[in-house]
Amino acid sequence: MTQSEALAFAAQFDPQPFHLDEKAAAESFFGKLALSGWHTASITMRLFVESDLRLAGGLIGVGVDSLIWPRPSFPDDTFRLEIEVVHVRPLKSRPDQGIVKLRNRTLNQRDEVAQEVVVNVLARRRSTS
Amino acid sequence: MTQSEALAFAAQFDPQPFHLDEKAAAESFFGKLALSGWHTASITMRLFVESDLRLAGGLIGVGVDSLIWPRPSFPDDTFRLEIEVVHVRPLKSRPDQGIVKLRNRTLNQRDEVAQEVVVNVLARRRSTS
Repeated sequence: MTQSEALAFAAQFDPQPFHLDEKAAAESFFGKLALSGWHTASITMRLFVESDLRLAGGLIGVGVDSLIWPRPSFPDDTFRLEIEVVHVRPLKSRPDQGIVKLRNRTLNQRDEVAQEVVVNVLARRRSTS
Repeated sequence: MTQSEALAFAAQFDPQPFHLDEKAAAESFFGKLALSGWHTASITMRLFVESDLRLAGGLIGVGVDSLIWPRPSFPDDTFRLEIEVVHVRPLKSRPDQGIVKLRNRTLNQRDEVAQEVVVNVLARRRSTS
């Protein structure tokens, strides 16, 4: 992650002074230039796609049960992802599909939680024939 | 929103075939090239920043109580945002701050809900002196 990537994301999706300008950020709640939480969420998706988790049909989110950013993240942070499968539930209406509930923790280089999300992902059942 | 913006976001944050390749998308759950849900979420943040809502200190999310994507979105969709203030709660630990809970509905050009998120935003109390 570089500062120019952080600024580019913020300019496109979250153009608030504390995401765009070092001086404004220094005077803000964050104290220095901070990442948009939605940038952290998007980086988390990238790590999720690059993970070992493989579901038939791909990783298609239907929604999020909860998402927290316990602390701000910054342009020089690096992230890794811990994935916990909470449960797998077949869909009554469509027996060939199911919902996989995952708790995804995004950790920074100090092993602090930058984001924790509980996300529901659609999965196709593997054919059993 | 243009197809090249959709492809750029997907390449950076959600590089799955149904977000990147029309042929793969046609054979996928979506049936055609679809937006990453996190792209919809990021566009929603942009609309939120551009809205009339002004909180002292800016729009700083601490987390999300729930987020759903009831249907996929596509590169030619256009979005608008409906903001509902659910409640405002002072923080016991820091009386000069509070949490504003908002229900933000992202609607497409057919007035269908593309995303609904309940988000908690940090706010500073205005000085009463």
